Amino acid sequence: MEGKSWIFKNRPAIVASGVVGGPFEQKSPYSGEFDLVKDTLWMEEESFEKANRQLIESAIQVTLDKKTLSSNDIDALLMGDLINQITPTSMAARTLSAPYLGLFSACATSMEGLALSAALIDGGYCQKVLTGASSHNAAVEKQFRYPTEYGGQKPPTAQWTVTGAGVALIEKASPHNAPLALIEKATIGKVVDNGIKDPFNMGAAMAPAAADVIERHLNQTNQTIDDFDLIITGDLSRIGHPITEDLLKQKGIAFKSGQFLDCGKMFYPELPDVQAGASGPACSAMLVYSHFLNELQKGSVRKILSVATGALLSPLTFQQGESIPCIAHAVELSSPAVNSQSFRGEE
Amino acid sequence: MEGKSWIFKNRPAIVASGVVGGPFEQKSPYSGEFDLVKDTLWMEEESFEKANRQLIESAIQVTLDKKTLSSNDIDALLMGDLINQITPTSMAARTLSAPYLGLFSACATSMEGLALSAALIDGGYCQKVLTGASSHNAAVEKQFRYPTEYGGQKPPTAQWTVTGAGVALIEKASPHNAPLALIEKATIGKVVDNGIKDPFNMGAAMAPAAADVIERHLNQTNQTIDDFDLIITGDLSRIGHPITEDLLKQKGIAFKSGQFLDCGKMFYPELPDVQAGASGPACSAMLVYSHFLNELQKGSVRKILSVATGALLSPLTFQQGESIPCIAHAVELSSPAVNSQSFRGEE
Repeated sequence: MEGKSWIFKNRPAIVASGVVGGPFEQKSPYSGEFDLVKDTLWMEEESFEKANRQLIESAIQVTLDKKTLSSNDIDALLMGDLINQITPTSMAARTLSAPYLGLFSACATSMEGLALSAALIDGGYCQKVLTGASSHNAAVEKQFRYPTEYGGQKPPTAQWTVTGAGVALIEKASPHNAPLALIEKATIGKVVDNGIKDPFNMGAAMAPAAADVIERHLNQTNQTIDDFDLIITGDLSRIGHPITEDLLKQKGIAFKSGQFLDCGKMFYPELPDVQAGASGPACSAMLVYSHFLNELQKGSVRKILSVATGALLSPLTFQQGESIPCIAHAVELSSPAVNSQSFRGEE
Repeated sequence: MEGKSWIFKNRPAIVASGVVGGPFEQKSPYSGEFDLVKDTLWMEEESFEKANRQLIESAIQVTLDKKTLSSNDIDALLMGDLINQITPTSMAARTLSAPYLGLFSACATSMEGLALSAALIDGGYCQKVLTGASSHNAAVEKQFRYPTEYGGQKPPTAQWTVTGAGVALIEKASPHNAPLALIEKATIGKVVDNGIKDPFNMGAAMAPAAADVIERHLNQTNQTIDDFDLIITGDLSRIGHPITEDLLKQKGIAFKSGQFLDCGKMFYPELPDVQAGASGPACSAMLVYSHFLNELQKGSVRKILSVATGALLSPLTFQQGESIPCIAHAVELSSPAVNSQSFRGEE
C-alpha cells in the first residue's frame, strides 16, 4: 500500500490570517502584504524567546481582529515553533486561553497544523481553529548555533531564519465567511534522511523529503503537476530547491517555468546576508498566509500545493553524530474565486 | 461559549498496544502487564537519547507484531516526547517510515495524540494510526535538571520520570478487529498557569489544568462523574492529585472512594526514591495502554476518563523567571465488553 492522502469533502476555508514580521523582514519584497512588522528584534521584551512569544500573540490578535472574534470563539489552536519544548507557542496559548494542541515538525509545522486543522473542521469536531507557526532569528541562532553577537561566519549553503509568525483561521466554507482559500487535500510527510550531517546545509538535507511528499501527493490523489498553477516549497532555498527539482525530474515530474517556487528563495531575494536564502517555520507560514493567500483570493492563482519542509535535528543529535532526519507536509489549496462549488454550503 | 468536546460518532477502537519499560520500571506493581522491560538504562545505545528512541521503536514494533502489520500499513504516527525538538520520536519515525505528525504537550502528549488519532480515524482520513508517548529518566534529568551521576538531592515534592514508551494502534471499530477499548469523546486542554515557578513541584502546578479539563469535559458532554467508573489523571502524584480533588470539590464535583486515580501515584507506590510519585509522558501512556486497557477489554471497568497532565516549561523559561504553564487533555474510553453497540460496524 502506498499510503493515502487526506481528502477534505467539505473543503474547509481559510477565512482570515495574521502575518507579523521582524525588522529585517521589512526588506522582503512581500512585506507590503504583511499585517504588521516590528521595529526591533527585542520588541521591548526581556529575551528573544519572549519576543518570539509576542510575534505569535500579535499574529493571533490580528487574525481575531479581522473577524471581530475573541478567544472564547476559538475551538483549538494548533501551532508550534523551533524553541526547546515550543515554549513561545505554549506561552502564547496561555495568553489566548483556548484549547491548545502543541505541534512540532520544525519548519514543516505550518502545514502539519493546516492539515490537522482542516481535518478537525471537515470532520465536524471544531468550528473555528487557529493554526500557524513562528520563528525568531536571534532566539534560534542562540539555541542552534551561536548568539548573533558572536558574529560567527557561515558557509554559503547556510540559511537565514525568518523572524515572524503566520497564523490562519480555518472554518467550514460558507457564503457568509468569505473564504480566502479552500483546503482540498493533504499528504503527511514521512521522515526521509539522505545522510547529510551538516546543519549549515539544511536545504540539501530537506530536498528528498520534499520530493517524496510531492510525488506521493500527485500519485495518491491521481493528479499531475499540470493540475497545479504553483507548487511552493517552504525553505529549501538556493541549494535545496534545484535538488528537489532534479529528484522529481528523475521520477518523470517536470515543472513548467515559474511553476515550482520556494518561499526561502523568494523571501529576501536581493540580500547577501541571507546566504542560500530564508528558513524557519515563519518563512513559509508568512508567505503562504499573506502573498499566496491574496493570490488565491483574487483568483490569479487557481490551485497551489503548499509544501512546508522541516529538518528534525537538534544541537544534541548533531553532537551525537546523527544525520539530519527531514520531513515535508503538503496541503492543496484552491481559489474560491474560480471555484463555483465553494459556496454551495452544506454538502 | 464554553467550548466543545469532540464526539467520535463511530467510536474508533484501540485494537492493540505496546508498552515497554526500563529497568526501574520492573519494580512497578503493574510491570506484569507491560510487554517488555529493558535491563539497563543504556539499552546498548551510545546515549540516553538514543535509548529513548529505542524504547519508542520497541513499543511500536510490539504493537505492529500483535497485529502482524508492517510500517506500510500505518497511515500516521502521532507521537512526542520531552527531549528538545522531540528528536527521539523523530528518529523512531525515521525507522518506522510512515507518515509522521510530531506532537508536544509534555506529559499530556499521550492524550493529545489519542484525541487527534481518534478524529483522523472517525473522520475517515486514516485507517490505521499509531499514537503514544515516551520518556527516559536519565535523558530527561540531564536536560531539565542535572545528569543523574551528580546525585543532586531533591525536595519531597519532586517526581521521578518514568523510563518507557506506550503506543496504541487505533482503527475503526469492527467485529473483525477485536477492540480493547472504544474512544468515545475528547476534551482538549487550555493552558492554565497558577503562578507556580518551582520545577520540583509540578504536581501542584498541573493540578488546576487537570481540574479545568475534567470540569469542562463533564459540562460539555452533559455527564456527571457518576457516568464514569474511573477518572485517571496522568502524573499529578501525591502533591497534585489531592489538590485537583479539592478544586473539583469546590465546583461541586465529589468523587466516590477509589473513583479518582493517578498514574503517578500508582506507578511505583512503595518506592521512597520516587518522592511524590512518577511523572513523564510514559507514566500515563504505559499504565493506560497496559493495565487500564486490560481492564476495559475484560469489562471490569465500563468507562474511564483518561486525563494526561503536562507542564509546558523548559529550563530556559525557568531561568527567565516564568511561571509554569500547564495543560491536560481528556479522552473518554469505554469497554467493548459491556457495550453492545460496539460491534454494529458501519453506522
